[in-house]
Amino acid sequence: MPKDDSITMSIAAGRTTHALQNRFRSEYCGLLSPELEHSTVRLGGWVHRKRDHGGLIFIDLRDHTGISQLVIQPEQHDLFEAAGQLHSESVICIEGEVVLRSPSTINPKLASGEIEVVVSRLTVESNAQPLPFPVADEVQTSEELRLKYRFIDLRREKIHENIIFRSRLTAAIRRYLEEREFIEIQTPILTSSSPEGARDFLVPSRLHPGKFYALPQAPQQFKQLLMVSGFPRYFQIAPCFRDEDARADRSPGEFYQLDMEMAFIEQDDLFAILEGMVEHLTRTMSEKRITQFPFPRISYKDVMNRFGTDKPDLRIPIEISDVTSLFVNSSFKVFASNTVPGTCVKALLLKGRGHESRLFYDKAEKRARELGSGGLAYIQFREEGPKGPVVKFLSEEDLATLKSHLGVETGDVVFFGAGKWEQTCRIMGGMRTYFGDLFTLDKDELSFCWIVDFPMFEYNEEAKKIDFSHNPFSMPQGEMEALETKSPLDILAYQYDIVCNGIELSSGAIRNHRPDIMYKAFEIAGYPKEEVDLRFGHMIEAFKLGAPPHGGIAPGLDRLVMILRDEQNIREVIAFPMNQSAQDLMMSSPSEVTPQQLKELHLRVELPKKDEPKK
Amino acid sequence: MPKDDSITMSIAAGRTTHALQNRFRSEYCGLLSPELEHSTVRLGGWVHRKRDHGGLIFIDLRDHTGISQLVIQPEQHDLFEAAGQLHSESVICIEGEVVLRSPSTINPKLASGEIEVVVSRLTVESNAQPLPFPVADEVQTSEELRLKYRFIDLRREKIHENIIFRSRLTAAIRRYLEEREFIEIQTPILTSSSPEGARDFLVPSRLHPGKFYALPQAPQQFKQLLMVSGFPRYFQIAPCFRDEDARADRSPGEFYQLDMEMAFIEQDDLFAILEGMVEHLTRTMSEKRITQFPFPRISYKDVMNRFGTDKPDLRIPIEISDVTSLFVNSSFKVFASNTVPGTCVKALLLKGRGHESRLFYDKAEKRARELGSGGLAYIQFREEGPKGPVVKFLSEEDLATLKSHLGVETGDVVFFGAGKWEQTCRIMGGMRTYFGDLFTLDKDELSFCWIVDFPMFEYNEEAKKIDFSHNPFSMPQGEMEALETKSPLDILAYQYDIVCNGIELSSGAIRNHRPDIMYKAFEIAGYPKEEVDLRFGHMIEAFKLGAPPHGGIAPGLDRLVMILRDEQNIREVIAFPMNQSAQDLMMSSPSEVTPQQLKELHLRVELPKKDEPKK
Repeated sequence: MPKDDSITMSIAAGRTTHALQNRFRSEYCGLLSPELEHSTVRLGGWVHRKRDHGGLIFIDLRDHTGISQLVIQPEQHDLFEAAGQLHSESVICIEGEVVLRSPSTINPKLASGEIEVVVSRLTVESNAQPLPFPVADEVQTSEELRLKYRFIDLRREKIHENIIFRSRLTAAIRRYLEEREFIEIQTPILTSSSPEGARDFLVPSRLHPGKFYALPQAPQQFKQLLMVSGFPRYFQIAPCFRDEDARADRSPGEFYQLDMEMAFIEQDDLFAILEGMVEHLTRTMSEKRITQFPFPRISYKDVMNRFGTDKPDLRIPIEISDVTSLFVNSSFKVFASNTVPGTCVKALLLKGRGHESRLFYDKAEKRARELGSGGLAYIQFREEGPKGPVVKFLSEEDLATLKSHLGVETGDVVFFGAGKWEQTCRIMGGMRTYFGDLFTLDKDELSFCWIVDFPMFEYNEEAKKIDFSHNPFSMPQGEMEALETKSPLDILAYQYDIVCNGIELSSGAIRNHRPDIMYKAFEIAGYPKEEVDLRFGHMIEAFKLGAPPHGGIAPGLDRLVMILRDEQNIREVIAFPMNQSAQDLMMSSPSEVTPQQLKELHLRVELPKKDEPKK
Repeated sequence: MPKDDSITMSIAAGRTTHALQNRFRSEYCGLLSPELEHSTVRLGGWVHRKRDHGGLIFIDLRDHTGISQLVIQPEQHDLFEAAGQLHSESVICIEGEVVLRSPSTINPKLASGEIEVVVSRLTVESNAQPLPFPVADEVQTSEELRLKYRFIDLRREKIHENIIFRSRLTAAIRRYLEEREFIEIQTPILTSSSPEGARDFLVPSRLHPGKFYALPQAPQQFKQLLMVSGFPRYFQIAPCFRDEDARADRSPGEFYQLDMEMAFIEQDDLFAILEGMVEHLTRTMSEKRITQFPFPRISYKDVMNRFGTDKPDLRIPIEISDVTSLFVNSSFKVFASNTVPGTCVKALLLKGRGHESRLFYDKAEKRARELGSGGLAYIQFREEGPKGPVVKFLSEEDLATLKSHLGVETGDVVFFGAGKWEQTCRIMGGMRTYFGDLFTLDKDELSFCWIVDFPMFEYNEEAKKIDFSHNPFSMPQGEMEALETKSPLDILAYQYDIVCNGIELSSGAIRNHRPDIMYKAFEIAGYPKEEVDLRFGHMIEAFKLGAPPHGGIAPGLDRLVMILRDEQNIREVIAFPMNQSAQDLMMSSPSEVTPQQLKELHLRVELPKKDEPKK
């Protein structure tokens, strides 16, 4: 008979649990409390630890809610013997009476630490053989072994909680967006190759010899077509696939992104929705604090000037200063020659670091060279006067202007960079990050920002031509008028990044939904209409049949979980990840297939020759 | 600036909508009402229809909420000219004043039919070229054209609503399960080949020459491993892939199932959860009624005896009767010879159909032959006495017993089948379905049932050996004791199907989590331990490291939507389906790839020779 009526609802640690009343269990281990004293309970779980104390056997029984201490008394011979033979991680179901522990044996670390269960019946559901690594104790285990026995690894507390958190976060994202009229639509996984981007995973077609599906790198075209279909707000927790080599923050093969798109919106509308969601998730699901809300918006130009990167960690309490104008007439040629358009002189002030050892400055210079700089000029402002390799080139006036411009005090040090604008910004940004280690950054602080106003075009030095800076399909700010009247390098795009603590969560854009503007933008980048039609024809054709203004973004789900759970390795937030060589060690994939399977797919494997050098 | 504060919330037709107040729109077309009289509103949408009446231009503007009538007056020359040039399905944004329609022009069919908007500003966001087929009018359109221009097709009301319904249903499923402590976990899509089942889609590995990933046919092994990992309740709206030829109720390539698994449960627990969910979804999201709740449970043996299929449509108000015992001593040898074990005589009573024309009975016999029967015996019980091909073989006593046993009245007809049990049941089941057309079935009635107690083993006539009936990994009822003491063909499995109106929504099972019972079951089916280890070793190894009792089910999401939306074709409930030849006509997939891509994957295409016969 259905048992809806007999479902018990308990609330513990902010979590609702429905324990089905059945022959296996009536309660959960972690939720037993002194109020249940003298009740008979049934529990099911894993033998976390077993101890033999003074003729009694104690078992810590673990389920997903926590641990209960079981007591098996020697008077019950059969039970005692059965319990004696149990190995760790065996699955048992027990019946027993809840009793209070004596005050000296109370375990304040456990929710159920005030009680124990005197066992009167014990069923072994699964006898565990010796494990490849323990669950109860944190033992250093190779990642290879952990992945091969992922089903054991997932029993360990931290990763178990990570996976539950990921599930709850995903559910919270969905609820937030659904309440705002977003609808989740599943887009195809067997689809076609993207015109540009990373390497596709291909799937050979059996029915169409010699043809292949591609797994989506992102549902970009589908989500834009959904806007053309009149769905106003779309999202999807979308599986995406890129055949790229592994990185710590990206899983080889597949990853999930929160893919979003909205019609009839402007950039501000999207920012408000995403900011609201991130703030809601952070507040309700973590102990973390958002530094500034609404998130600050920093133009690409400003973020490069101030932080030397478009992924700034705003928690690092130093900024790059522009001192170009100070050196226009300087006698120090290295600086003066970098005051013409396209070049700059940048300074980074470190308060109170003017008296460090020589080693400190030497290591900093080494870092600057690694970043591509020819060296690292600096001035230590000491009681006895300024000191450092470039002091001798600067006039008293230069130094005085510099001090007042930067607010230098005695005991400070100023580092300099000079050269082409972007490269100099990037080197100084690298130095800012390097010096970031001098400060204790609060890991519970989430410093989000938007990077906006990316340039639409850039000058491609190699090809000696104007090229798209980022996405050719973003709407240029000022639309057609800008394309027709402005210098291409001055045109900005409705393109944006969201960044948190130095990590880029996503790029996004207001899309160009107008074929006329699209053709014009491609023309500026040197592509004739015919070529545009050839490469992007079917999207442009769709836009010719009634397309609304639209835009979107697609934050990485894995990265969001990593940020909120303080994990550095993406494999800690995915249930069954592949290893860094794109293998599933548990399932032994990829693996060989039968000749029959290859024949059906019209394929022959051509193994690389042994002596052929690998790429 | 973020605009959270300016979000307007309206409620119409039971649906909450947040209209962002921005330059494109301030309100939605379908939600305008007389209360807004004299307000200035901004709307954005598609030109659904355009009419020129007495010097005024009327535009029906459509967004996802419905339609508003716009009026453009000739006094505004520029506006009037622009409006005059608009083609259907162009996207426009307008500003205008809400006015009440004169009583004679009120359109009671539209939510916004009491008002119209006098336009004062009009921006064309997208000029639509002529469409491949119209959106506003239902015109018979080939499926090929609809799929090629899916982004236009999805604007049409019915399919647009289907996709929204699917999204809302999926959201409701998730909420229901999450409230019951299920957590959704994403399992890998790049994984390994299933040991058995349908044909896999393969994905060649670039990093591991000659090896392939497989796309999952279902996350069966992963969900069981999650139980071994200690997650108590798992679900996933899981993409699944089978390289099978298309069927009306299955999409070629990919489909979605609601994959579920629970630990420490029995069959009853799972039934209660799933029934509760289905009832909740039906009640809250459709106009349909569930015939019987809790869902009736019918054993495999009973369902075959009574309905002749394990997918019965219980709405058909006739049942098969077993009349074997009546003919043990009959002089009619055809019946009497089928009263020994393994055979049967079955009867199907049709009330009031004893006076049909000869054609009626001939067509029925034709159908019976198509179903594999040698013929169709029947008796018409008429006022003048029994009539029909077998009457002459039956004694008066036979006839009298039959009448009282079946409750036959004058005017009825009884059809017979006799032979081997399963085949006879199936033929009579086919006849029951055939006669089902005589009755008007209520399409708003959902007659769910569980089919339970499937046999664990069956006798394989071809191989002359005992074999598994269904899933070797289901738990046998009575566990080890049953395997050791019962005749294999008498052993039942904890295996179940959920069926609605003749459609199987899913199979499921309580799994066999005990290696000893698994080895024993395979031994009965003739597989030695070594072979079991070779084929299913890694699952059994996992079960040796502490596995809880567990079970699950995986109803097809596409089918659930089809049932609730009265759709017969799966392509009506999927946003971007492939056609029946497994092609995406819109994206042109599958497609050819470059030689470089093939080289990276260590593959060569071997096209079938032109004169080679296709399979």
